[in-house]
Amino acid sequence: MLKDLTVEEFNKKLSSSAPVPGGGSVAALCSSVACSLAAMVGNLTHGKKAYAEVSEQAKELAEKYEVLSAEFLQLIDEDARVFDKVMDAYGLPKETEEEKAVRKERIQSTLKEAALVPLKVAQKSGELFEAFEFLAEKGNKNAKSDALVGTMMLRTGILAALMNVDINLSFIKDEHFVKETAAEADILRKLAVDREAKIIFS
Amino acid sequence: MLKDLTVEEFNKKLSSSAPVPGGGSVAALCSSVACSLAAMVGNLTHGKKAYAEVSEQAKELAEKYEVLSAEFLQLIDEDARVFDKVMDAYGLPKETEEEKAVRKERIQSTLKEAALVPLKVAQKSGELFEAFEFLAEKGNKNAKSDALVGTMMLRTGILAALMNVDINLSFIKDEHFVKETAAEADILRKLAVDREAKIIFS
Repeated sequence: MLKDLTVEEFNKKLSSSAPVPGGGSVAALCSSVACSLAAMVGNLTHGKKAYAEVSEQAKELAEKYEVLSAEFLQLIDEDARVFDKVMDAYGLPKETEEEKAVRKERIQSTLKEAALVPLKVAQKSGELFEAFEFLAEKGNKNAKSDALVGTMMLRTGILAALMNVDINLSFIKDEHFVKETAAEADILRKLAVDREAKIIFS
Repeated sequence: MLKDLTVEEFNKKLSSSAPVPGGGSVAALCSSVACSLAAMVGNLTHGKKAYAEVSEQAKELAEKYEVLSAEFLQLIDEDARVFDKVMDAYGLPKETEEEKAVRKERIQSTLKEAALVPLKVAQKSGELFEAFEFLAEKGNKNAKSDALVGTMMLRTGILAALMNVDINLSFIKDEHFVKETAAEADILRKLAVDREAKIIFS
């Protein structure tokens, strides 16, 4: 699994022309790192006298964001896995009319799956800004920059994921699916840009 | 070294209340991942018929950015190392007047070092936007999103690094050093925000 590579190996693999990992995996990685930073700020706030008022909340956030970080790490591999499924579909035989039809349908269904994985990364990430805002404002002052770096990672995770949604959509013929998904992506894109700017430039 | 941790281990260590890795290490990681993505796009462009015109340039960029990616990975550890030096300086004895003076001077000199490492990350990263713009415009169209994700990672790397510059500056008493460094940081901050927005929203 990609999360079991060392940071150096991951980077080397990313540099290569191998199709995965690519931007989709980096999206999930960004959101994972963002959550780890949130957990860190929570852990640095919890149990400190100066932050007694938010100590319990910080502890809960730290626990929650450690779990979220691990969930996003899983999505790095899910992104790679659905990419492989699309490639397998393109590789199906296309001699007879029946084979052609089967292949076409399989390509379309795997492309939808491949669009929905990064959409999930973006949706899941989009719900998290509130905690980063809270940690930046009420968390340990010495770790404020970590909360802000996490916020930027979250924006990058979302925008990167949505770019990968768009790519898959561009090959999907189901107009209803494309329209609905693109609309959802637009909302998330705006949310990511606006909320990050509000938190880091305020 | 931090780059020898698996991605999962790095994330777990980041989540903890241990002082390193923190936002400073994440800054260098972002720039490293950005460079890996640039190298990937270069590798996917080089040698392709449709991109014959830029093939040589793409090859050179791929080679250059693989090296840069490795250099930024080294800076993850350098950030952790100078942080430890500052902590060691704070831990020096402060019984006698002489000890106090030595400790104070050591704290100030290590804080300067600690400010200059993330400044180097930001400066080094700030010089790279041109290549990302080139790859996004002239590189393999199928990898355009990877060039854009890399551009976002570069912005995050710079802004994250500069937040860590600022933190160190807030403890430094040498007004001339603070003024000069803060001015440089402001220029880089503006450059990162403007150039990224120009590339990814154009």
